[in-house]
Amino acid sequence: MSETNQPVEQLAVNTIRMLTIDAVENAKSGHPGMPMGTAPMAYVLWSRLMRHNPDNPDWFNRDRFVLSAGHGSMLLYSLLHLSGYDLPMEELKNFRQWGSKTPGHPEANHGTPGVEATTGPLGQGISNAVGMAMAERHLAAVYNREGYPVVDHYTYTICSDGDLMEGVSAEAASLAGHLQLGKLIALYDSNNISLDGQTAAAFTEDVQKRFEAYGWQVIRVEEENNLEAIEAAVREAQAESGRPTLIEVKTTIGYGSPNLAGTHKIHGAPMGPEEAAEVRKAYGWNWEEPFYVPPEVREHFAALKEQGVRSEKEWNELFEQYKKEFPEQGRQLERAIQGELPEDWDAELPVYQTGDKAMATRAASGEALNALASTVPTLFGGSADLASSNKTTLKEEEVFHAEDYTGRNVWFGVREHAMGAALNGMMLHGGLRAFGATFLVFSDYLRPSIRLAALSKLPVIYVFTHDSIAVGEDGPTHEPVEQLPALRLIPHLKVFRPGDANETVGAYRYALTRKEEPVAFVLSRQGLPILEGTAEKAEEGAARGAYVLSDAEGGQPDVILIATGSEVSLAVESQQKLKEEGIRVRVVSMPCREQFDEQPEDYRESVLPSGVKARVAIEAAHPSGWEKYVGEQGTVIGIDTFGASAPGGLVMEKYGFNTDNVIQHVKQVFNR
Amino acid sequence: MSETNQPVEQLAVNTIRMLTIDAVENAKSGHPGMPMGTAPMAYVLWSRLMRHNPDNPDWFNRDRFVLSAGHGSMLLYSLLHLSGYDLPMEELKNFRQWGSKTPGHPEANHGTPGVEATTGPLGQGISNAVGMAMAERHLAAVYNREGYPVVDHYTYTICSDGDLMEGVSAEAASLAGHLQLGKLIALYDSNNISLDGQTAAAFTEDVQKRFEAYGWQVIRVEEENNLEAIEAAVREAQAESGRPTLIEVKTTIGYGSPNLAGTHKIHGAPMGPEEAAEVRKAYGWNWEEPFYVPPEVREHFAALKEQGVRSEKEWNELFEQYKKEFPEQGRQLERAIQGELPEDWDAELPVYQTGDKAMATRAASGEALNALASTVPTLFGGSADLASSNKTTLKEEEVFHAEDYTGRNVWFGVREHAMGAALNGMMLHGGLRAFGATFLVFSDYLRPSIRLAALSKLPVIYVFTHDSIAVGEDGPTHEPVEQLPALRLIPHLKVFRPGDANETVGAYRYALTRKEEPVAFVLSRQGLPILEGTAEKAEEGAARGAYVLSDAEGGQPDVILIATGSEVSLAVESQQKLKEEGIRVRVVSMPCREQFDEQPEDYRESVLPSGVKARVAIEAAHPSGWEKYVGEQGTVIGIDTFGASAPGGLVMEKYGFNTDNVIQHVKQVFNR
Repeated sequence: MSETNQPVEQLAVNTIRMLTIDAVENAKSGHPGMPMGTAPMAYVLWSRLMRHNPDNPDWFNRDRFVLSAGHGSMLLYSLLHLSGYDLPMEELKNFRQWGSKTPGHPEANHGTPGVEATTGPLGQGISNAVGMAMAERHLAAVYNREGYPVVDHYTYTICSDGDLMEGVSAEAASLAGHLQLGKLIALYDSNNISLDGQTAAAFTEDVQKRFEAYGWQVIRVEEENNLEAIEAAVREAQAESGRPTLIEVKTTIGYGSPNLAGTHKIHGAPMGPEEAAEVRKAYGWNWEEPFYVPPEVREHFAALKEQGVRSEKEWNELFEQYKKEFPEQGRQLERAIQGELPEDWDAELPVYQTGDKAMATRAASGEALNALASTVPTLFGGSADLASSNKTTLKEEEVFHAEDYTGRNVWFGVREHAMGAALNGMMLHGGLRAFGATFLVFSDYLRPSIRLAALSKLPVIYVFTHDSIAVGEDGPTHEPVEQLPALRLIPHLKVFRPGDANETVGAYRYALTRKEEPVAFVLSRQGLPILEGTAEKAEEGAARGAYVLSDAEGGQPDVILIATGSEVSLAVESQQKLKEEGIRVRVVSMPCREQFDEQPEDYRESVLPSGVKARVAIEAAHPSGWEKYVGEQGTVIGIDTFGASAPGGLVMEKYGFNTDNVIQHVKQVFNR
Repeated sequence: MSETNQPVEQLAVNTIRMLTIDAVENAKSGHPGMPMGTAPMAYVLWSRLMRHNPDNPDWFNRDRFVLSAGHGSMLLYSLLHLSGYDLPMEELKNFRQWGSKTPGHPEANHGTPGVEATTGPLGQGISNAVGMAMAERHLAAVYNREGYPVVDHYTYTICSDGDLMEGVSAEAASLAGHLQLGKLIALYDSNNISLDGQTAAAFTEDVQKRFEAYGWQVIRVEEENNLEAIEAAVREAQAESGRPTLIEVKTTIGYGSPNLAGTHKIHGAPMGPEEAAEVRKAYGWNWEEPFYVPPEVREHFAALKEQGVRSEKEWNELFEQYKKEFPEQGRQLERAIQGELPEDWDAELPVYQTGDKAMATRAASGEALNALASTVPTLFGGSADLASSNKTTLKEEEVFHAEDYTGRNVWFGVREHAMGAALNGMMLHGGLRAFGATFLVFSDYLRPSIRLAALSKLPVIYVFTHDSIAVGEDGPTHEPVEQLPALRLIPHLKVFRPGDANETVGAYRYALTRKEEPVAFVLSRQGLPILEGTAEKAEEGAARGAYVLSDAEGGQPDVILIATGSEVSLAVESQQKLKEEGIRVRVVSMPCREQFDEQPEDYRESVLPSGVKARVAIEAAHPSGWEKYVGEQGTVIGIDTFGASAPGGLVMEKYGFNTDNVIQHVKQVFNR
């Protein structure tokens, strides 16, 4: 008992609340209401149930916890601080300040130990959690042995009404139910309030029934402050191995605030010092000093930390024994955990020769993926119901499904957005190299998740096929125009549009070795010739982002043609024809603009000599961004309108992707 | 009875199927399976139930029909042709060919009469239908009078498994249930097959239970070919006025194909002539001639068309009477139907004066919206749970809800994507000027719908606030960087980032008068000063996309500063300071790049004289695309990484949005 006469656990709950209030007041910005309402459930989870070691946030077999309602970040920071993670009180005092480890919304890989996912954009966190639970089930199925449950943990998430209104969470929940992810447990902070007011104004569905329809177990807890009831519900969830569980906890936003509890006014703004003083009273909190942690709470969490340290120690011993008993699996799993590739990872990657038959880059991607699948056991992924079109099926591997989680082919269903968020979850979990695929035009559907992969430094691989108006008959709804340049705008994402099969393989080589960068492949539906020179140059060329594929004889070009993807062969053809007319052309293939931009100046100058001002860029996409490479005297052959439905070759022809038009543009810039 | 001894209705169903097969075979491309399975339900709907007049596809009170599963476009084209719309057989023979009115997926406003929505990207069509049903309910509530149900129609859609797997449809269905849209009837083509194979591999949820959880009535039809059963189900749906209805019809994809029915092989590719011959036999189709329509089928549809013509005639008479009885409402509704603005529509728009207090452009937007709400009765929309932040509440208007559909404030909930799709549906329906709002960073969530608005030529208005890293404490998850330039890439979308309150009003003036262009406003969270000159120049300036806000004294600038949004005032400040140093600066405000690009060359030259090569663009967003305006000697102050969590002013300062940095850049380009 403390001087407030509260049991230490109640005091711990109130400490979480008060740290939140003090941090938000101090920052004059933030969301106090959610942590005040969810402190009890979060406390129970973190103290009585979760296995985690604050001394080692990277312990592989820890339970995962995702704060899907990321605006309640102070809940997480308070818990991390109290639990003994390396997040000193100074950081809580610097909540939402420049350079702090406590940004407004939690950011994974931002230096804050114990933050499992970047959340805030609603619906993403719970969908990340689905990906984590998938990763856990797969790795457990592959590596666990009788008596050696080396991968065996729960994935918890706390989500909000807003999370459950988002389509991405609906997709992910349907997928989780389908996959029977029994170790996924979502606590639903059901407070009937969202930013604009009563959720009843927009959200009156029967959430319980909906989640049951997905195949989830749903448990309801009526007493938000009843720690025993919350614990019992989570234990019931743990006991259900064949279904994920949603625990709906009826809560009060801003619990304890005499004037603001249960209203949207306490959702996203400080309550002010007067109300904070009232809340102190309501909590029986006798200390006026902000950021105060009662000593018995400190002691209590210190003891809990010891349990966590012990848990990891026991697991380390188990894993050591496992490695002795199963040396091959042990090595493999260790490498997977560390995110390292096997030594021979690229041994099976193909090389194509000029004269080989034309090949769509999506087909080359399929061959690369299959070559890698044989050497990289962590390769895991699939398509949003387009595997046969995206060519992403790993032919020697099984489907990942509820009866057998060892498969590495994931059927995401027509759920692009959940796929994107789940891929993030898999990479956050660790142990996998995750990839996902759809048509390039539908990359828009998962764009919010791609952004978060880039922000969170997750090397997810995206396979986007059917990459231009050459898609043809399916028409403008299926013909990307703006998607390619729009992807290039996402900071830290690398976008590759390879010109042939060899460049595709080069792009895979690049992508597989990334540790912090997501990579998107933009691939053709139609066959593309194997270009002369790529067998030798494409590997380095892809890694450099751009290279001289074919120079004017003897160097010293009059004109530079810059192209990507299916337009590289058009550039080469045009080069030949222009040669006949005495115009000396260099063809630069630029599979990755962002990568080229990062090269040293002398390399860039060697590819695009500043003396050659006559330049034409050719790309079957919106031309924006190419001005930088072609300069004021140059020009771009691109598309600034939508596509059309007709055979692909004809559409390309009509939109100016033919040698006549290229030649005409070249002559224009040459004669300027 | 025909020479096949089939009842004419059965023959009509088989005609739809055969036209589909012939068109797909002829095009050597397309999706035959879906129309073969859904021909009976579609036929029943179009012949026995739907009120529509093939002679006038624009009849306002027609029942709406959205083919959400847009890949089954030949179902729709067959029905349009047979029903007597102006879609001659020649167009069916030109299916998926250049210049035809029968593109691979249906396209609204593409010249194909009777196509109500552009579909194909899954999940969009059914969500458009929700928007249409909302529009119908609102207009009915506002305009109908006792005995004068002038707006009174159903909205039908046929959707697929794929549609129902998408998150956007989940959001929209939840919203439709909440709003109790009883006149929305969705027929669910439940065929257990998607592109990759059995839906059971990825989609095992209980769809019926899920839709019941949303508040829908769900009816199941087991016999796909039983026209009576289908009709009975739809009539039951019509009878339920308080809930939308999902009719799950268990179907066979590729019905009738001896070797391919029930498999994914008939989903998206021609079946080939041999199988087509087999199918002819299975249908008892005795004609080998492709594109054959039996005369009794022609007669049958001609009679149906007469009914449709009569329906519209009756409505026209009703509406004439209505206009006499209620002249004011009649005029208003007529104008709404024609998409015309009232004469005085802009009378209440405010003008701000330099010296007025600083105002966030989101706040100016709120004032503009409210000014317009008082004069434009068709203005209808809201926010995805951010109305209080987006400032989109129409203060004198009620909330649109199930108990009272007259309100014009829509609470979309945290459902950005459904909002986007519903806005499209409202504009497709007609009678409304729809707007929707969220934070700019979350424009990514509805991007697929924005694309379709642009492709379908729908003048939707998007209000995107919190437009840069100046958002501050909420951090990088909430700070847009790439969204602004990414929106600019969408063809036919106009993106306005106004520099102050007057430019905001100017942007609204522009947007309201559009008939075919969606417009996105990108607005600041933070206050911006009212700039000198905007009271006079902003209206034309916004309409022109860019203008000289403040010139160097006497003209003849040394340097041009180009800026948008919150950076315009920074440019003006920098101009003052540079003047002291003897550098003569012109400030160009460029609220809409795309609009400026469309101006005549002499205007563009007058704003950006080609002789002035020293140019700096300033915009707190990814810099891509500005190279075109600043040229090789110019430079861009932008952001090519993610934002940070800290007070907004500090973040802007740290990222270089301060006069010192601008001045340094100006001197650099000036001295080049």
